[in-house]
Amino acid sequence: MSTSAETFPLTRRNRVVRRPMRGHYDKATVYDILDRALVCHLAYVIDGQPYCTPTAFWRDGDTLYWHGSAASRMIRNQGQGNEGAGLPVCLTVTHMDAIVLARCGFNHSINYRSVMAFGTARRIDDDAEKVRLMDRFLDRFFPGRAGLVRQPTRKEVKATSFIAMPIEQASAKIRDVGVHDDEEDYAVPAWTALLPVRTVLGRIEECPRQMPGVRKPRGMKGYVAGRRLDEIFLEASRAYAPAAGEEGPA
Amino acid sequence: MSTSAETFPLTRRNRVVRRPMRGHYDKATVYDILDRALVCHLAYVIDGQPYCTPTAFWRDGDTLYWHGSAASRMIRNQGQGNEGAGLPVCLTVTHMDAIVLARCGFNHSINYRSVMAFGTARRIDDDAEKVRLMDRFLDRFFPGRAGLVRQPTRKEVKATSFIAMPIEQASAKIRDVGVHDDEEDYAVPAWTALLPVRTVLGRIEECPRQMPGVRKPRGMKGYVAGRRLDEIFLEASRAYAPAAGEEGPA
Repeated sequence: MSTSAETFPLTRRNRVVRRPMRGHYDKATVYDILDRALVCHLAYVIDGQPYCTPTAFWRDGDTLYWHGSAASRMIRNQGQGNEGAGLPVCLTVTHMDAIVLARCGFNHSINYRSVMAFGTARRIDDDAEKVRLMDRFLDRFFPGRAGLVRQPTRKEVKATSFIAMPIEQASAKIRDVGVHDDEEDYAVPAWTALLPVRTVLGRIEECPRQMPGVRKPRGMKGYVAGRRLDEIFLEASRAYAPAAGEEGPA
Repeated sequence: MSTSAETFPLTRRNRVVRRPMRGHYDKATVYDILDRALVCHLAYVIDGQPYCTPTAFWRDGDTLYWHGSAASRMIRNQGQGNEGAGLPVCLTVTHMDAIVLARCGFNHSINYRSVMAFGTARRIDDDAEKVRLMDRFLDRFFPGRAGLVRQPTRKEVKATSFIAMPIEQASAKIRDVGVHDDEEDYAVPAWTALLPVRTVLGRIEECPRQMPGVRKPRGMKGYVAGRRLDEIFLEASRAYAPAAGEEGPA
């Protein structure tokens, strides 16, 4: 396999300038951070004004997808010009892992894993493709979800837009070390610690109008209260697109 | 008190277009969402390219602050033109509260609280003001932190930049309802539930090189494993800038 298939190209746009040792450009690292998230933040520009919008997204190969109402300002502008023009977008995912207290302000820090992915967003207008993407989006929650729900109506398909953005460049940035002070500061009597942060699933609240006899689907066995959300989503991603040698969805 | 002191002005830039019932412009709601977060995402534009960068931030009144290395691309560009020019920025905070599974794809949703704040970022170049902001930033973790650590050196002050952005407009967007299906879909035998999501503090890992006898500061009594991070940070914000009738930091 060539290097270009395993890493994203390095350009001025995605090079990690500050703390370059925290930068990663290999696809495995970038994919891992993306696939563990359900929500990203999108930066885009309308009439010179930057907007930063949180939204659900998913990855298939080197393309990122998100959706929205066909009427939304974001979708209308991101989709400018069918099959072509589009808008430049930076899609960012951040997992916050810890707060790091140190013996001086300068060494206080946050542990995190983040990805910035750059590309040009293109709106999908084909209804059949939109139906396929709706199913794919549902299967992002857990493989098989799309087959368990009522199929989309024509009106719902019309009202929903999807955006596809092939990743042109991407970079990951990771800080995962503990308290690290300047040697002479270890004599400073400031209490220091790493404060881990976890985003976890809470206690599941079933719909009060659940049909009798309807049980939690087998595909959701990973959704357990207290479990880390990034692990649940990574598992769902891998079940959908299994790594070589792993088992795919039943 | 006039309306303008209690709500942000409504313009094309910050008006919630989609699902307007989810939009809020009162400062109490916007402040609450901002003050519960340590990390935001910033959208800004360099040479026509949007960037979306996660960073720690805090709020004082109607001004948002963040910091970075004086050498960083983001800070250099955001601070263009001392005391004036600056760059338009959209600062967004998102708290994800739940995943909502429904009986059709269209009604799948995410519960969240988010704020988009718009303004022009200006770099702070005055050293004395930078020292003050360093202390303020530390006290964001918990009031009193700045007084417990080694004071910044001249070199650290030079290497750190702060950015201030008065909020020109802001909007909050909140979804906080459970499963909500079309009436005829309640007969669809799809398992549906609200899956709560919580970002919580994990088990604190003290620095292995802690000085003997140094104890967790009193100001950190809210930092308890398992507690929601947004509550810890809201408490820290309120202790720093107490609401009328509440007690401030000792």
